[in-house]
Amino acid sequence: MVKTNLQLRLQKPMIIVNFKTYRESTGKNAIEIANEAEKVHKETNILVGVAPQVADIAAVAKAVKIPVFAQHIDPMDPGSFTGHVLAESVREAGAVGTLINHSERQLKLSDICQIVKLARENHLVSCVCANNPNTSMAAATLDPDMIAIEPPELIGTGIPVSKAKPEVVTDSIRLVRQVNSKVTILCGAGISSGEDVAAALRLGTQGVLVASGVVKAKDPYAIMREFADASKPYVSQEKP
Amino acid sequence: MVKTNLQLRLQKPMIIVNFKTYRESTGKNAIEIANEAEKVHKETNILVGVAPQVADIAAVAKAVKIPVFAQHIDPMDPGSFTGHVLAESVREAGAVGTLINHSERQLKLSDICQIVKLARENHLVSCVCANNPNTSMAAATLDPDMIAIEPPELIGTGIPVSKAKPEVVTDSIRLVRQVNSKVTILCGAGISSGEDVAAALRLGTQGVLVASGVVKAKDPYAIMREFADASKPYVSQEKP
Amino acid sequence: MVKTNLQLRLQKPMIIVNFKTYRESTGKNAIEIANEAEKVHKETNILVGVAPQVADIAAVAKAVKIPVFAQHIDPMDPGSFTGHVLAESVREAGAVGTLINHSERQLKLSDICQIVKLARENHLVSCVCANNPNTSMAAATLDPDMIAIEPPELIGTGIPVSKAKPEVVTDSIRLVRQVNSKVTILCGAGISSGEDVAAALRLGTQGVLVASGVVKAKDPYAIMREFADASKPYVSQEKP
Amino acid sequence: MVKTNLQLRLQKPMIIVNFKTYRESTGKNAIEIANEAEKVHKETNILVGVAPQVADIAAVAKAVKIPVFAQHIDPMDPGSFTGHVLAESVREAGAVGTLINHSERQLKLSDICQIVKLARENHLVSCVCANNPNTSMAAATLDPDMIAIEPPELIGTGIPVSKAKPEVVTDSIRLVRQVNSKVTILCGAGISSGEDVAAALRLGTQGVLVASGVVKAKDPYAIMREFADASKPYVSQEKP
Repeated sequence: MVKTNLQLRLQKPMIIVNFKTYRESTGKNAIEIANEAEKVHKETNILVGVAPQVADIAAVAKAVKIPVFAQHIDPMDPGSFTGHVLAESVREAGAVGTLINHSERQLKLSDICQIVKLARENHLVSCVCANNPNTSMAAATLDPDMIAIEPPELIGTGIPVSKAKPEVVTDSIRLVRQVNSKVTILCGAGISSGEDVAAALRLGTQGVLVASGVVKAKDPYAIMREFADASKPYVSQEKP
Repeated sequence: MVKTNLQLRLQKPMIIVNFKTYRESTGKNAIEIANEAEKVHKETNILVGVAPQVADIAAVAKAVKIPVFAQHIDPMDPGSFTGHVLAESVREAGAVGTLINHSERQLKLSDICQIVKLARENHLVSCVCANNPNTSMAAATLDPDMIAIEPPELIGTGIPVSKAKPEVVTDSIRLVRQVNSKVTILCGAGISSGEDVAAALRLGTQGVLVASGVVKAKDPYAIMREFADASKPYVSQEKP
Repeated sequence: MVKTNLQLRLQKPMIIVNFKTYRESTGKNAIEIANEAEKVHKETNILVGVAPQVADIAAVAKAVKIPVFAQHIDPMDPGSFTGHVLAESVREAGAVGTLINHSERQLKLSDICQIVKLARENHLVSCVCANNPNTSMAAATLDPDMIAIEPPELIGTGIPVSKAKPEVVTDSIRLVRQVNSKVTILCGAGISSGEDVAAALRLGTQGVLVASGVVKAKDPYAIMREFADASKPYVSQEKP
Repeated sequence: MVKTNLQLRLQKPMIIVNFKTYRESTGKNAIEIANEAEKVHKETNILVGVAPQVADIAAVAKAVKIPVFAQHIDPMDPGSFTGHVLAESVREAGAVGTLINHSERQLKLSDICQIVKLARENHLVSCVCANNPNTSMAAATLDPDMIAIEPPELIGTGIPVSKAKPEVVTDSIRLVRQVNSKVTILCGAGISSGEDVAAALRLGTQGVLVASGVVKAKDPYAIMREFADASKPYVSQEKP
């Protein structure tokens, strides 16, 4: 079962399911979808990670062995910061990584830089979200483990960026690779079918960041399974 | 053991311990201090509540039966709000209330209004923090369950507002009572001894919001016990 | 010509035109609309104020003698605050007042409190915007010169709050008057005809805060004149 | 006299004086310092630019022919954005450029990206401030005209980064040049003598961003003159 950072970084393609703050993925529902994600992982050997709300991390991390991500952490070291989210606290609750700068929780440039650093110090995989090719390149210079490209205008639409704006994906990959050869590149926004996943991987990404397409689906298990099956042809042959 | 909102509202004086994001009160440490707080409550019958970080709420709420507060919730209903803290999520994790607008996590006026409403709808006790008599009065018009007066310049200093600026406390009580006869009034910032607690209660508050004075103490249990003992003479005779 | 705070406070009803950041009211266009507003004031003796962008305050204040408001100031005293808007700077540029907490530029509660105080110290009329009856009441406790009630969901719609949600206006007036007998109460959002203005005044407000209804109109002069004419029956007989 | 973007970009080294929100550089005082800056420019032919508060841009731009910068603009196109600062508005008031992301007015990554784009569309020179080598590199990928490196812990200290942390400057230059060969690199924070300016230029920067060292000086003219004289040996021989 994958859980170390090293393995997580290497096993591609990957599917990360952002639970956002949907009712369908809060509390008990979060555990249920996480269990289904783990089932898909076991059946397909495709890496499926989940990003529940902070209050749900501990219970989800206890329930499953697939990677659990926080949706956000704050740029602070321990101290007097009431109401903020420490890297330490999500790590101790069981998260192995964190989303950073999601378009619904955007951050100052200096804070992104600081959070990537804090994530590294706390052995959390860092996944910086970016809204366009330029900001993807900027984010890549900060040396996170992953970049997730998500044009916010497509989030939740069911229109996948890989189809609606393939040039956003290819431009992002091109610019990111100019400054960072190692970072894993995910693509998100609007992904709702296996074909959308395949389209993203064909364009050269190493995985997808999905949310409503899974969480709001009638059968989250079935759609995650469809995503994983569509990813299989893109599994790298190289030995980790 | 007190845990319903009604009881929580009635049992005064009360001591709420804000765990902030101190290392000493993160993860396992959070559970330890919460256990000690519960011990003090059992020994003295003074209400002691704890406000751990969001990632620690579930574990703390499982470990103790004293009231657990979130340090912050966001003004959103369930939806697409990656990285935000839902009232639902902290409630389901076991919180019975939430701090709102702490000086280290200040909020827009309209968001405070919305969060007080969301807290009520989600059966969470709302405790709005305010930095001076004017903002305390403004907060009181929004009809939260509690107001906590904390002059930010005294937070963490060990200089209690009840001694350094007693007029801040008495002015706040006077202004708050002009617009709200029911709200519970706490006072915070700089409280580090039983005498500080007694001074706050003598001035007319119904409890204290404390943080470093407890969490950073060599013996958090001992200082919470001192706070509780100092509160005993102020227990109301009225039957809840 | 009215320009002192005292007169400004007394002369009711009043019309304040928020220029927002419309192209139609930026730079030279700002001066043009301000001139037309002044013309309406001269013709009708109804107080018409204008709130141009910060960069346009100096030129507008030089061009007209009607009251010029800033759209926002920051809660800072002079110091190291690059990119912020000082009360002193807008005052020296010619503003006699400022909007505060407009729904498009919302502020933390403690900052609203501080800005009202700074406005008073700098002899600027303070007009705090609020989005509902509860926040209107909260704002009124901070003792600004004016409150402007603007339900954000109606802004720019052409559907006036005075018609669509008259109870928002009457509830706001009732709650505000419980805590503040002096503050001038304006109402905004969706006002686009003289009848809308009259409806607002009939409900008990002392004026209107308008924006797109004037600035985006084919003939801003004509619509401001219509607003002023509709206000005339509500001119108080009391001698200032 | 220099005022076109092209010339501004080419004429190096340059000195930009950030007026911040000091009382000594607000309103009439802003014009006075700007006049002195222009005098220094005329005497030395070293480019000296000024960055007054938004409310002062129009008056300063009318008084002097040296380049005037805004301290901040917002990432919006014209529209309903009360209280925000349009690129159009500062341009029309006479600014030829703008600071972006100053450490006292930090911005989200996507907003920096958008503002650089808006600045270009509005023919404003863009100068993105960054707090360390990593964020300087990230900022450089967004293709602004200038980067200003300012470690915030040194701002206002009188301890120049060029002396206290020369490796911050050299690391920044190295990383920036990996992704952007054209951007002008300034350095700021703590610069208060001609020797500090010379040290910054020796390290390979093309100019300095200064504030309190000039504005709070007893004789701003004298210190700007000292800065300009210290810059002379570094004037490039290449024909613009």
